[in-house]
Amino acid sequence: MKSILITGSNRGLGLGLVKHLVQLPKPPENIFATCRNVNKATELKELAEKSRNVHIIEIDLTDTSNYKKIVNSVREKVGSAGLNVLFNNAGISQKFTRLAMVKEENLTNTLFINTVAPIMLAKTLLPLLKIAAKNNEIGKGMNINRAAIINMTSILGSIAQNDQGGFYSYRCSKAALNAATKSMSIDLKDEGILVVCLHPGWVRTDMGGNNAPLDIDTSVSSILNVMETLSEKHTGSFLQYDGTTLPW
Amino acid sequence: MKSILITGSNRGLGLGLVKHLVQLPKPPENIFATCRNVNKATELKELAEKSRNVHIIEIDLTDTSNYKKIVNSVREKVGSAGLNVLFNNAGISQKFTRLAMVKEENLTNTLFINTVAPIMLAKTLLPLLKIAAKNNEIGKGMNINRAAIINMTSILGSIAQNDQGGFYSYRCSKAALNAATKSMSIDLKDEGILVVCLHPGWVRTDMGGNNAPLDIDTSVSSILNVMETLSEKHTGSFLQYDGTTLPW
Repeated sequence: MKSILITGSNRGLGLGLVKHLVQLPKPPENIFATCRNVNKATELKELAEKSRNVHIIEIDLTDTSNYKKIVNSVREKVGSAGLNVLFNNAGISQKFTRLAMVKEENLTNTLFINTVAPIMLAKTLLPLLKIAAKNNEIGKGMNINRAAIINMTSILGSIAQNDQGGFYSYRCSKAALNAATKSMSIDLKDEGILVVCLHPGWVRTDMGGNNAPLDIDTSVSSILNVMETLSEKHTGSFLQYDGTTLPW
Repeated sequence: MKSILITGSNRGLGLGLVKHLVQLPKPPENIFATCRNVNKATELKELAEKSRNVHIIEIDLTDTSNYKKIVNSVREKVGSAGLNVLFNNAGISQKFTRLAMVKEENLTNTLFINTVAPIMLAKTLLPLLKIAAKNNEIGKGMNINRAAIINMTSILGSIAQNDQGGFYSYRCSKAALNAATKSMSIDLKDEGILVVCLHPGWVRTDMGGNNAPLDIDTSVSSILNVMETLSEKHTGSFLQYDGTTLPW
Protein backbone atom coordinates (compact mmCIF):
# COMPACT_ATOMS: atom_id res chain seq x y z
CA MET A 1 0.00 0.00 0.00
CA LYS A 2 1.10 3.53 -0.68
CA SER A 3 -0.70 5.24 2.17
CA ILE A 4 -2.19 4.28 5.53
CA LEU A 5 -3.73 6.25 8.37
CA ILE A 6 -3.56 4.77 11.87
CA THR A 7 -5.42 6.31 14.82
CA GLY A 8 -4.05 6.16 18.36
CA SER A 9 -0.42 5.95 17.27
CA ASN A 10 1.23 7.45 20.32
CA ARG A 11 1.64 4.12 22.09
CA GLY A 12 0.76 0.42 22.20
CA LEU A 13 -0.34 -1.32 19.02
CA GLY A 14 -0.75 1.91 17.05
CA LEU A 15 2.85 2.93 17.68
CA GLY A 16 3.93 -0.66 17.02
CA LEU A 17 2.22 -0.62 13.63
CA VAL A 18 3.97 2.62 12.62
CA LYS A 19 7.36 1.24 13.75
CA HIS A 20 6.95 -1.96 11.75
CA LEU A 21 5.67 -0.15 8.67
CA VAL A 22 8.68 2.16 8.41
CA GLN A 23 10.99 -0.86 8.65
CA LEU A 24 9.36 -2.76 5.77
CA PRO A 25 11.58 -3.38 2.72
CA LYS A 26 9.06 -1.33 0.75
CA PRO A 27 7.38 0.96 3.27
CA PRO A 28 4.26 3.01 2.47
CA GLU A 29 5.00 6.40 0.93
CA ASN A 30 2.75 8.05 3.50
CA ILE A 31 2.00 6.86 7.02
CA PHE A 32 -0.44 9.14 8.82
CA ALA A 33 -0.24 8.66 12.56
CA THR A 34 -2.89 10.35 14.67
CA CYS A 35 -2.45 11.05 18.36
CA ARG A 36 -4.28 13.19 20.90
CA ASN A 37 -1.26 15.02 22.29
CA VAL A 38 1.93 15.21 20.27
CA ASN A 39 3.89 16.47 23.28
CA LYS A 40 3.27 13.17 25.01
CA ALA A 41 4.10 11.12 21.90
CA THR A 42 7.89 11.12 22.31
CA GLU A 43 8.62 7.89 20.44
CA LEU A 44 6.28 8.76 17.61
CA LYS A 45 7.92 12.19 17.26
CA GLU A 46 11.35 10.58 17.04
CA LEU A 47 10.05 8.21 14.38
CA ALA A 48 8.61 11.09 12.37
CA GLU A 49 11.90 12.99 12.61
CA LYS A 50 13.85 10.00 11.26
CA SER A 51 11.30 8.86 8.67
CA ARG A 52 10.02 11.41 6.18
CA ASN A 53 7.04 9.19 5.31
CA VAL A 54 5.61 9.41 8.85
CA HIS A 55 3.19 12.32 9.31
CA ILE A 56 1.80 13.03 12.74
CA ILE A 57 -1.74 14.41 12.92
CA GLU A 58 -2.58 15.75 16.36
CA ILE A 59 -6.28 15.28 16.94
CA ASP A 60 -8.82 14.64 19.64
CA LEU A 61 -11.12 11.98 18.19
CA THR A 62 -13.86 12.78 20.72
CA ASP A 63 -14.70 15.89 18.67
CA THR A 64 -15.80 14.89 15.19
CA SER A 65 -15.72 18.49 13.98
CA ASN A 66 -11.91 18.01 13.93
CA TYR A 67 -12.11 15.20 11.40
CA LYS A 68 -11.96 17.59 8.46
CA LYS A 69 -8.45 18.45 9.61
CA ILE A 70 -7.47 14.81 9.05
CA VAL A 71 -8.89 14.85 5.52
CA ASN A 72 -6.99 18.03 4.71
CA SER A 73 -3.70 16.70 6.10
CA VAL A 74 -4.04 13.46 4.16
CA ARG A 75 -5.13 15.11 0.90
CA GLU A 76 -2.20 17.51 1.07
CA LYS A 77 0.24 14.58 0.97
CA VAL A 78 -1.50 12.00 -1.20
CA GLY A 79 -2.82 14.37 -3.84
CA SER A 80 -4.99 12.55 -6.37
CA ALA A 81 -3.80 9.10 -5.25
CA GLY A 82 -6.35 8.81 -2.44
CA LEU A 83 -5.89 6.86 0.78
CA ASN A 84 -5.35 3.10 0.67
CA VAL A 85 -5.94 2.11 4.27
CA LEU A 86 -7.79 3.55 7.26
CA PHE A 87 -6.77 1.62 10.37
CA ASN A 88 -9.19 2.49 13.20
CA ASN A 89 -6.92 1.50 16.06
CA ALA A 90 -7.64 4.10 18.78
CA GLY A 91 -9.86 2.87 21.57
CA ILE A 92 -10.39 2.82 25.30
CA SER A 93 -10.62 -0.15 27.62
CA GLN A 94 -12.32 -0.48 30.97
CA LYS A 95 -11.87 -2.29 34.25
CA PHE A 96 -13.76 -5.54 34.70
CA THR A 97 -17.25 -4.60 35.92
CA ARG A 98 -20.29 -6.71 36.79
CA LEU A 99 -23.80 -5.37 36.07
CA ALA A 100 -24.26 -3.95 39.57
CA MET A 101 -21.22 -1.67 39.07
CA VAL A 102 -21.89 -0.40 35.53
CA LYS A 103 -21.62 3.38 35.12
CA GLU A 104 -23.56 5.39 32.57
CA GLU A 105 -20.69 7.75 31.82
CA ASN A 106 -18.35 4.87 31.17
CA LEU A 107 -20.85 3.30 28.77
CA THR A 108 -21.47 6.49 26.79
CA ASN A 109 -17.77 7.47 26.62
CA THR A 110 -16.64 4.03 25.54
CA LEU A 111 -19.41 3.70 22.95
CA PHE A 112 -18.39 7.07 21.56
CA ILE A 113 -14.67 6.43 21.24
CA ASN A 114 -14.80 2.75 20.30
CA THR A 115 -17.88 2.77 18.06
CA VAL A 116 -19.10 6.20 16.96
CA ALA A 117 -15.64 7.70 16.29
CA PRO A 118 -14.41 4.90 13.95
CA ILE A 119 -17.71 4.99 12.03
CA MET A 120 -17.61 8.77 11.66
CA LEU A 121 -13.94 8.67 10.65
CA ALA A 122 -14.69 6.02 8.03
CA LYS A 123 -17.48 8.23 6.70
CA THR A 124 -15.19 11.27 6.63
CA LEU A 125 -12.34 9.49 4.86
CA LEU A 126 -14.63 7.58 2.49
CA PRO A 127 -14.09 9.99 -0.45
CA LEU A 128 -10.31 9.48 -0.21
CA LEU A 129 -10.68 5.70 0.07
CA LYS A 130 -12.98 5.70 -2.96
CA ILE A 131 -10.39 7.58 -4.99
CA ALA A 132 -7.73 5.00 -4.12
CA ALA A 133 -10.13 2.14 -4.92
CA LYS A 134 -10.96 3.71 -8.29
CA ASN A 135 -7.29 4.43 -9.12
CA ASN A 136 -6.35 0.81 -8.47
CA GLU A 137 -9.32 -1.02 -9.90
CA ILE A 138 -7.32 -3.10 -12.39
CA GLY A 139 -8.28 -6.71 -11.74
CA LYS A 140 -11.23 -5.50 -9.66
CA GLY A 141 -10.21 -7.58 -6.65
CA MET A 142 -9.95 -6.27 -3.12
CA ASN A 143 -6.73 -5.84 -1.18
CA ILE A 144 -4.94 -3.36 1.04
CA ASN A 145 -3.00 -1.99 -1.91
CA ARG A 146 -6.31 -0.88 -3.36
CA ALA A 147 -8.47 0.36 -0.44
CA ALA A 148 -9.38 -0.99 2.96
CA ILE A 149 -10.82 -0.13 6.35
CA ILE A 150 -9.40 -2.15 9.25
CA ASN A 151 -11.32 -1.82 12.50
CA MET A 152 -9.50 -2.93 15.62
CA THR A 153 -12.07 -4.67 17.74
CA SER A 154 -11.48 -7.47 20.23
CA ILE A 155 -12.39 -11.02 21.08
CA LEU A 156 -14.22 -9.41 24.02
CA GLY A 157 -16.64 -8.13 21.37
CA SER A 158 -17.43 -11.71 20.34
CA ILE A 159 -20.84 -12.46 21.89
CA ALA A 160 -20.48 -16.16 21.07
CA GLN A 161 -17.17 -16.41 22.95
CA ASN A 162 -18.26 -14.47 26.03
CA ASP A 163 -18.10 -16.92 28.93
CA GLN A 164 -16.85 -14.52 31.61
CA GLY A 165 -19.57 -11.83 31.57
CA GLY A 166 -19.00 -8.27 32.77
CA PHE A 167 -17.03 -5.67 30.75
CA TYR A 168 -20.26 -4.05 29.53
CA SER A 169 -18.81 -0.88 28.02
CA TYR A 170 -15.97 -2.58 26.23
CA ARG A 171 -17.90 -5.62 25.01
CA CYS A 172 -20.88 -3.54 23.81
CA SER A 173 -18.66 -1.03 22.00
CA LYS A 174 -16.65 -3.72 20.23
CA ALA A 175 -19.71 -5.84 19.30
CA ALA A 176 -21.23 -2.63 17.92
CA LEU A 177 -18.08 -1.90 15.89
CA ASN A 178 -18.18 -5.47 14.61
CA ALA A 179 -21.77 -4.83 13.51
CA ALA A 180 -20.70 -1.60 11.78
CA THR A 181 -17.83 -3.45 10.08
CA LYS A 182 -20.27 -5.92 8.53
CA SER A 183 -22.49 -3.09 7.25
CA MET A 184 -19.49 -1.18 5.88
CA SER A 185 -18.28 -4.29 4.05
CA ILE A 186 -21.66 -4.56 2.30
CA ASP A 187 -22.08 -0.82 1.66
CA LEU A 188 -18.58 -0.51 0.18
CA LYS A 189 -18.36 -3.80 -1.74
CA ASP A 190 -19.25 -2.24 -5.09
CA GLU A 191 -16.63 0.47 -4.52
CA GLY A 192 -13.94 -2.20 -4.13
CA ILE A 193 -13.18 -1.22 -0.53
CA LEU A 194 -12.29 -4.13 1.74
CA VAL A 195 -13.48 -3.94 5.38
CA VAL A 196 -12.54 -6.28 8.23
CA CYS A 197 -12.38 -6.19 12.00
CA LEU A 198 -9.34 -7.54 13.79
CA HIS A 199 -8.65 -8.91 17.24
CA PRO A 200 -5.00 -8.15 18.01
CA GLY A 201 -4.62 -10.93 20.59
CA TRP A 202 -4.08 -10.27 24.26
CA VAL A 203 -1.07 -8.01 24.10
CA ARG A 204 1.25 -6.55 26.73
CA THR A 205 0.22 -2.89 26.36
CA ASP A 206 -1.14 -0.31 28.82
CA MET A 207 -4.54 -1.72 27.88
CA GLY A 208 -3.67 -5.42 27.98
CA GLY A 209 -1.55 -5.32 31.12
CA ASN A 210 1.64 -7.16 32.06
CA ASN A 211 0.12 -10.63 32.17
CA ALA A 212 -0.78 -10.70 28.51
CA PRO A 213 0.91 -13.56 26.59
CA LEU A 214 1.79 -11.60 23.42
CA ASP A 215 4.29 -8.80 22.99
CA ILE A 216 3.53 -5.83 20.73
CA ASP A 217 6.04 -6.88 18.05
CA THR A 218 4.53 -10.35 17.67
CA SER A 219 0.97 -9.03 17.46
CA VAL A 220 1.85 -6.21 15.06
CA SER A 221 3.96 -8.30 12.70
CA SER A 222 1.22 -10.95 12.60
CA ILE A 223 -1.41 -8.30 11.89
CA LEU A 224 0.66 -6.86 9.03
CA ASN A 225 1.17 -10.36 7.59
CA VAL A 226 -2.57 -11.03 7.74
CA MET A 227 -3.32 -7.65 6.16
CA GLU A 228 -1.10 -8.56 3.19
CA THR A 229 -3.16 -11.70 2.54
CA LEU A 230 -6.59 -10.02 2.68
CA SER A 231 -8.77 -10.32 -0.40
CA GLU A 232 -12.46 -9.95 -1.32
CA LYS A 233 -13.20 -13.29 0.34
CA HIS A 234 -12.28 -11.76 3.72
CA THR A 235 -14.35 -8.60 3.52
CA GLY A 236 -16.88 -8.40 6.33
CA SER A 237 -15.09 -10.92 8.51
CA PHE A 238 -13.78 -10.88 12.08
CA LEU A 239 -10.18 -12.07 12.15
CA GLN A 240 -7.64 -12.68 14.84
CA TYR A 241 -4.03 -11.41 14.52
CA ASP A 242 -2.99 -14.84 13.22
CA GLY A 243 -5.69 -14.94 10.53
CA THR A 244 -8.13 -17.23 12.38
CA THR A 245 -11.79 -16.29 11.85
CA LEU A 246 -13.64 -15.49 15.07
CA PRO A 247 -17.37 -16.04 15.67
CA TRP A 248 -19.61 -12.99 16.15
CA MET B 1 -45.32 -14.35 37.02
CA LYS B 2 -46.70 -12.02 39.64
CA SER B 3 -45.12 -8.81 38.38
CA ILE B 4 -43.65 -7.45 35.17
CA LEU B 5 -42.36 -4.06 34.09
CA ILE B 6 -42.51 -3.17 30.40
CA THR B 7 -40.88 -0.04 29.00
CA GLY B 8 -42.31 1.84 26.02
CA SER B 9 -45.88 0.69 26.67
CA ASN B 10 -47.75 3.57 25.06
CA ARG B 11 -47.93 1.92 21.64
CA GLY B 12 -46.72 -0.89 19.39
CA LEU B 13 -45.40 -4.06 20.94
CA GLY B 14 -45.22 -2.62 24.46
CA LEU B 15 -48.90 -1.74 24.46
CA GLY B 16 -49.67 -5.09 22.82
CA LEU B 17 -47.86 -6.93 25.62
CA VAL B 18 -49.85 -5.09 28.31
CA LYS B 19 -53.13 -5.80 26.49
CA HIS B 20 -52.40 -9.52 26.20
CA LEU B 21 -51.19 -9.81 29.80
CA VAL B 22 -54.40 -8.37 31.30
CA GLN B 23 -56.44 -10.84 29.24
CA LEU B 24 -54.56 -13.92 30.46
CA PRO B 25 -56.64 -16.42 32.49
CA LYS B 26 -54.26 -15.75 35.38
CA PRO B 27 -52.82 -12.26 34.75
CA PRO B 28 -49.88 -10.84 36.69
CA GLU B 29 -50.85 -9.09 39.93
CA ASN B 30 -48.83 -6.06 38.89
CA ILE B 31 -48.09 -4.86 35.38
CA PHE B 32 -45.90 -1.76 35.37
CA ALA B 33 -46.15 0.05 32.05
CA THR B 34 -43.74 2.89 31.44
CA CYS B 35 -44.32 5.60 28.88
CA ARG B 36 -42.78 8.99 28.15
CA ASN B 37 -45.96 11.01 28.06
CA VAL B 38 -49.08 9.69 29.70
CA ASN B 39 -51.23 12.32 27.97
CA LYS B 40 -50.38 10.76 24.63
CA ALA B 41 -50.96 7.21 25.89
CA THR B 42 -54.74 7.13 25.45
CA GLU B 43 -55.15 3.38 25.02
CA LEU B 44 -52.81 2.58 27.88
CA LYS B 45 -54.72 4.97 30.16
CA GLU B 46 -58.00 3.27 29.27
CA LEU B 47 -56.43 -0.11 30.04
CA ALA B 48 -55.19 1.11 33.41
CA GLU B 49 -58.62 2.51 34.26
CA LYS B 50 -60.27 -0.84 33.52
CA SER B 51 -57.57 -3.09 35.00
CA ARG B 52 -56.44 -2.41 38.54
CA ASN B 53 -53.27 -4.46 38.00
CA VAL B 54 -51.95 -2.05 35.33
CA HIS B 55 -49.80 0.75 36.75
CA ILE B 56 -48.57 3.47 34.45
CA ILE B 57 -45.18 4.99 35.22
CA GLU B 58 -44.55 8.18 33.27
CA ILE B 59 -40.85 8.46 32.64
CA ASP B 60 -38.33 9.77 30.15
CA LEU B 61 -35.76 6.98 29.81
CA THR B 62 -33.18 9.36 28.34
CA ASP B 63 -32.55 10.72 31.85
CA THR B 64 -31.27 7.92 34.09
CA SER B 65 -31.64 10.09 37.19
CA ASN B 66 -35.38 9.35 36.83
CA TYR B 67 -34.87 5.62 37.21
CA LYS B 68 -35.13 5.77 41.01
CA LYS B 69 -38.73 6.85 40.48
CA ILE B 70 -39.39 3.52 38.74
CA VAL B 71 -37.88 1.58 41.64
CA ASN B 72 -40.01 3.47 44.13
CA SER B 73 -43.22 2.97 42.13
CA VAL B 74 -42.55 -0.76 41.77
CA ARG B 75 -41.51 -1.29 45.39
CA GLU B 76 -44.64 0.48 46.60
CA LYS B 77 -46.82 -2.12 44.89
CA VAL B 78 -44.80 -5.33 45.16
CA GLY B 79 -43.61 -4.88 48.72
CA SER B 80 -41.23 -7.67 49.73
CA ALA B 81 -42.13 -9.86 46.75
CA GLY B 82 -39.66 -8.21 44.39
CA LEU B 83 -40.06 -7.89 40.62
CA ASN B 84 -40.26 -11.02 38.48
CA VAL B 85 -39.68 -9.61 35.00
CA LEU B 86 -38.06 -6.54 33.49
CA PHE B 87 -39.00 -6.32 29.82
CA ASN B 88 -36.76 -3.74 28.13
CA ASN B 89 -39.01 -3.02 25.18
CA ALA B 90 -38.57 0.73 24.56
CA GLY B 91 -36.34 1.59 21.64
CA ILE B 92 -35.92 3.80 18.63
CA SER B 93 -35.50 2.83 15.02
CA GLN B 94 -33.88 4.70 12.15
CA LYS B 95 -34.25 5.15 8.45
CA PHE B 96 -32.10 2.99 6.20
CA THR B 97 -28.76 4.76 5.88
CA ARG B 98 -25.58 3.86 4.01
CA LEU B 99 -22.17 4.80 5.46
CA ALA B 100 -21.93 8.05 3.53
CA MET B 101 -25.14 9.32 5.19
CA VAL B 102 -24.48 8.29 8.81
CA LYS B 103 -25.05 11.05 11.37
CA GLU B 104 -23.22 11.32 14.67
CA GLU B 105 -26.26 12.51 16.61
CA ASN B 106 -28.33 9.61 15.34
CA LEU B 107 -25.63 7.15 16.41
CA THR B 108 -25.24 8.58 19.91
CA ASN B 109 -29.00 8.96 20.54
CA THR B 110 -29.81 5.46 19.32
CA LEU B 111 -26.94 3.90 21.29
CA PHE B 112 -28.21 5.68 24.38
CA ILE B 113 -31.88 4.67 24.15
CA ASN B 114 -31.39 1.17 22.73
CA THR B 115 -28.25 0.13 24.62
CA VAL B 116 -27.30 2.32 27.57
CA ALA B 117 -30.86 2.82 28.92
CA PRO B 118 -31.78 -0.90 29.11
CA ILE B 119 -28.45 -1.70 30.80
CA MET B 120 -28.86 1.10 33.32
CA LEU B 121 -32.48 0.11 33.99
CA ALA B 122 -31.42 -3.51 34.54
CA LYS B 123 -28.79 -2.30 37.00
CA THR B 124 -31.33 -0.09 38.79
CA LEU B 125 -33.97 -2.81 39.09
CA LEU B 126 -31.47 -5.56 39.92
CA PRO B 127 -32.12 -5.42 43.70
CA LEU B 128 -35.85 -6.02 43.10
CA LEU B 129 -35.17 -8.84 40.63
CA LYS B 130 -32.79 -10.44 43.14
CA ILE B 131 -35.48 -10.37 45.83
CA ALA B 132 -37.93 -12.13 43.52
CA ALA B 133 -35.28 -14.69 42.53
CA LYS B 134 -34.49 -15.36 46.19
CA ASN B 135 -38.18 -15.60 47.18
CA ASN B 136 -38.80 -18.20 44.48
CA GLU B 137 -35.66 -20.26 44.64
CA ILE B 138 -37.40 -23.58 45.35
CA GLY B 139 -36.19 -26.01 42.69
CA LYS B 140 -33.39 -23.54 41.81
CA GLY B 141 -34.34 -23.50 38.13
CA MET B 142 -34.79 -20.37 36.08
CA ASN B 143 -38.08 -19.16 34.68
CA ILE B 144 -40.13 -15.99 34.29
CA ASN B 145 -42.11 -16.82 37.46
CA ARG B 146 -38.87 -16.51 39.36
CA ALA B 147 -36.91 -13.61 37.82
CA ALA B 148 -35.96 -12.59 34.29
CA ILE B 149 -34.71 -9.76 32.12
CA ILE B 150 -36.04 -9.77 28.55
CA ASN B 151 -34.24 -7.42 26.20
CA MET B 152 -36.07 -6.61 22.97
CA THR B 153 -33.39 -6.53 20.30
CA SER B 154 -33.81 -7.34 16.62
CA ILE B 155 -32.64 -9.60 13.86
CA LEU B 156 -31.03 -6.40 12.51
CA GLY B 157 -28.66 -6.75 15.47
CA SER B 158 -27.54 -10.15 14.18
CA ILE B 159 -24.13 -9.55 12.58
CA ALA B 160 -24.14 -13.02 11.04
CA GLN B 161 -27.46 -12.40 9.27
CA ASN B 162 -26.63 -8.91 7.99
CA ASP B 163 -26.67 -9.17 4.21
CA GLN B 164 -28.19 -5.75 3.43
CA GLY B 165 -25.72 -3.41 5.13
CA GLY B 166 -26.60 0.10 6.28
CA PHE B 167 -28.74 0.82 9.38
CA TYR B 168 -25.63 1.68 11.42
CA SER B 169 -27.31 3.20 14.47
CA TYR B 170 -29.94 0.53 14.83
CA ARG B 171 -27.72 -2.46 14.05
CA CYS B 172 -24.90 -1.26 16.33
CA SER B 173 -27.27 -0.51 19.22
CA LYS B 174 -28.99 -3.89 19.00
CA ALA B 175 -25.74 -5.86 18.56
CA ALA B 176 -24.46 -4.01 21.63
CA LEU B 177 -27.59 -4.89 23.61
CA ASN B 178 -27.16 -8.51 22.52
CA ALA B 179 -23.61 -8.33 23.89
CA ALA B 180 -24.89 -6.86 27.15
CA THR B 181 -27.56 -9.60 27.35
CA LYS B 182 -24.87 -12.28 27.20
CA SER B 183 -22.87 -10.59 29.96
CA MET B 184 -25.97 -10.14 32.13
CA SER B 185 -26.87 -13.81 31.70
CA ILE B 186 -23.43 -14.78 33.05
CA ASP B 187 -23.30 -12.14 35.80
CA LEU B 188 -26.78 -13.06 37.08
CA LYS B 189 -26.66 -16.85 36.68
CA ASP B 190 -25.82 -17.52 40.32
CA GLU B 191 -28.67 -15.25 41.39
CA GLY B 192 -31.13 -17.37 39.40
CA ILE B 193 -32.07 -14.51 37.07
CA LEU B 194 -32.77 -15.57 33.50
CA VAL B 195 -31.70 -13.16 30.71
CA VAL B 196 -32.52 -13.41 27.01
CA CYS B 197 -32.79 -11.12 24.02
CA LEU B 198 -35.76 -11.40 21.70
CA HIS B 199 -36.43 -10.51 18.09
CA PRO B 200 -40.17 -9.74 17.81
CA GLY B 201 -40.36 -10.47 14.08
CA TRP B 202 -41.05 -7.82 11.52
CA VAL B 203 -44.26 -6.35 12.89
CA ARG B 204 -46.76 -3.79 11.57
CA THR B 205 -46.02 -1.02 14.10
CA ASP B 206 -44.99 2.61 13.70
CA MET B 207 -41.44 1.21 13.71
CA GLY B 208 -41.99 -1.76 11.41
CA GLY B 209 -44.20 0.03 8.87
CA ASN B 210 -47.24 -1.16 6.94
CA ASN B 211 -45.44 -3.74 4.81
CA ALA B 212 -44.42 -5.91 7.76
CA PRO B 213 -45.81 -9.47 7.55
CA LEU B 214 -46.77 -9.87 11.24
CA ASP B 215 -49.49 -8.08 13.18
CA ILE B 216 -48.92 -7.00 16.77
CA ASP B 217 -51.26 -9.65 18.23
CA THR B 218 -49.45 -12.52 16.52
CA SER B 219 -46.02 -11.27 17.58
CA VAL B 220 -47.05 -10.53 21.16
CA SER B 221 -48.92 -13.80 21.77
CA SER B 222 -45.95 -15.73 20.34
CA ILE B 223 -43.54 -13.81 22.56
CA LEU B 224 -45.64 -14.52 25.65
CA ASN B 225 -45.81 -18.22 24.73
CA VAL B 226 -42.04 -18.35 24.31
CA MET B 227 -41.53 -16.51 27.60
CA GLU B 228 -43.57 -19.20 29.40
CA THR B 229 -41.25 -21.92 28.11
CA LEU B 230 -37.99 -20.22 29.08
CA SER B 231 -35.68 -22.09 31.45
CA GLU B 232 -32.02 -22.04 32.51
CA LYS B 233 -31.05 -23.66 29.20
CA HIS B 234 -32.19 -20.51 27.36
CA THR B 235 -30.39 -17.92 29.46
CA GLY B 236 -27.97 -15.87 27.40
CA SER B 237 -29.59 -16.74 24.09
CA PHE B 238 -31.01 -14.71 21.21
CA LEU B 239 -34.49 -15.93 20.35
CA GLN B 240 -37.04 -15.01 17.75
CA TYR B 241 -40.74 -14.50 18.67
CA ASP B 242 -41.45 -18.12 17.66
CA GLY B 243 -38.68 -19.58 19.84
CA THR B 244 -36.11 -20.08 17.06
CA THR B 245 -32.52 -19.35 18.13
CA LEU B 246 -30.84 -16.64 16.07
CA PRO B 247 -27.10 -16.40 15.36
CA TRP B 248 -25.16 -13.46 16.86
